[in-house]
Amino acid sequence: MTGGEDKVGTYKFVAEPFHCDFSGRLTMSVLGNHLLNCAGFHAADRGFGMATLNENHYTWVLSRLAVELEDMPRQYEEFSIQTWVENVYRLFTDRNFAILNNEGKPIGYARSVWAMISMETRKPADLLTLHGGSITGYVCDKECPIGKPGRVKVAEKTPLFHYQIRYSDIDINGHVNSIKYIEHILDLFPIGLFKEKRIKRFEMAYVAESYYDDTLNFYREKVGENEYDIEVRKNGTDVVVRSKVIFM
Amino acid sequence: MTGGEDKVGTYKFVAEPFHCDFSGRLTMSVLGNHLLNCAGFHAADRGFGMATLNENHYTWVLSRLAVELEDMPRQYEEFSIQTWVENVYRLFTDRNFAILNNEGKPIGYARSVWAMISMETRKPADLLTLHGGSITGYVCDKECPIGKPGRVKVAEKTPLFHYQIRYSDIDINGHVNSIKYIEHILDLFPIGLFKEKRIKRFEMAYVAESYYDDTLNFYREKVGENEYDIEVRKNGTDVVVRSKVIFM
Repeated sequence: MTGGEDKVGTYKFVAEPFHCDFSGRLTMSVLGNHLLNCAGFHAADRGFGMATLNENHYTWVLSRLAVELEDMPRQYEEFSIQTWVENVYRLFTDRNFAILNNEGKPIGYARSVWAMISMETRKPADLLTLHGGSITGYVCDKECPIGKPGRVKVAEKTPLFHYQIRYSDIDINGHVNSIKYIEHILDLFPIGLFKEKRIKRFEMAYVAESYYDDTLNFYREKVGENEYDIEVRKNGTDVVVRSKVIFM
Repeated sequence: MTGGEDKVGTYKFVAEPFHCDFSGRLTMSVLGNHLLNCAGFHAADRGFGMATLNENHYTWVLSRLAVELEDMPRQYEEFSIQTWVENVYRLFTDRNFAILNNEGKPIGYARSVWAMISMETRKPADLLTLHGGSITGYVCDKECPIGKPGRVKVAEKTPLFHYQIRYSDIDINGHVNSIKYIEHILDLFPIGLFKEKRIKRFEMAYVAESYYDDTLNFYREKVGENEYDIEVRKNGTDVVVRSKVIFM
């Protein structure tokens, strides 16, 4: 055994023109979409995909995502994403990613944390007993040289922006899709900041669901020269997601 | 010759989960993105792609798009898009599309109209002299059984919605990307309408560009029981796009 190359899934992409920002580089929200799709493909190929789980009335829930990048694919550039399972605990699993440029060189990494819940009770399922514990057989020690998602806490009392949830925000589960939050959060920053700097690290913590017609309030705190903490609260006080954006 | 099967490009897709709406069907904006990508692939394979044009300081500009559908792919469903050139005129070319379900049966069609402009003067180029007129060799008489894009004129004076353009709306050309308008226009309708009905036909006419920080005003007029005309104007009066949405 060489450390489980067969445990790593690799998926190819092209940076499509309408998925790139003004700089001609892939947007963070589209990269996030690709990461979550790769998680889905990798799990499905191993019998832990959404379709199989849904038959058994379970579903994966994304809890955290952290992405750290040295570069972003350019318009029309081919790139690939590798994904593998780092840890399986009773209630959570850690899934990591590497983003490789068109020469196969890593240009970034990502970490994600997932829980599995019952679609009926919304209670967490025990991952270690799922399919007789077979998910643990996919754990792999491939390196992921970026920090784990940290804690974000925002004290700011005045929202920077508010947004009423609309048709295109809502996914098949009836709540705002995980990718749309990324887009709304990055839209808090002026385009001039993206002209001067690029995103080095981006973190999301998914705390609660929000629904059609909910009003989201966005609170932002500058916590370092290039570092911002963001909290999104719905209908007054309930925290929906927390995020950290580090530019460089 | 059988009518030019080699002139038709066919491209495969899967309806990704974050590209589907609450009903689990692909959204119109994502379908629009795929259509425009297919146009790009098909043109590039025949020497008329953006990359080649840009080298010569020309670029394609989308003028009109009309989509008419009997059905929409479901989450995880495979589907394909065919595209071909119907006509080439001096200043415009008509490109059509068929959307096929996972059994290869057409579930919809689309029509688009494109111009080519000089990136320096922004003036239109003569398509009939491009590459010695060779683009006309790709014209194909495959059937596209939907009506051509019509004229939309909105008299409504009170905007239904206004929106200030943000970072994620802007593409590499520095203006709002064609797909984002589709998303903003469909977000004018309450989710309840999409629960009762589905979009039968959708039209877009791209009239002028809009830029970061511009404020877009959305005017909507109900012109039939299930038919709405929409006009988007920037900074007061300048028309940016017009659209028609027919539900059934």
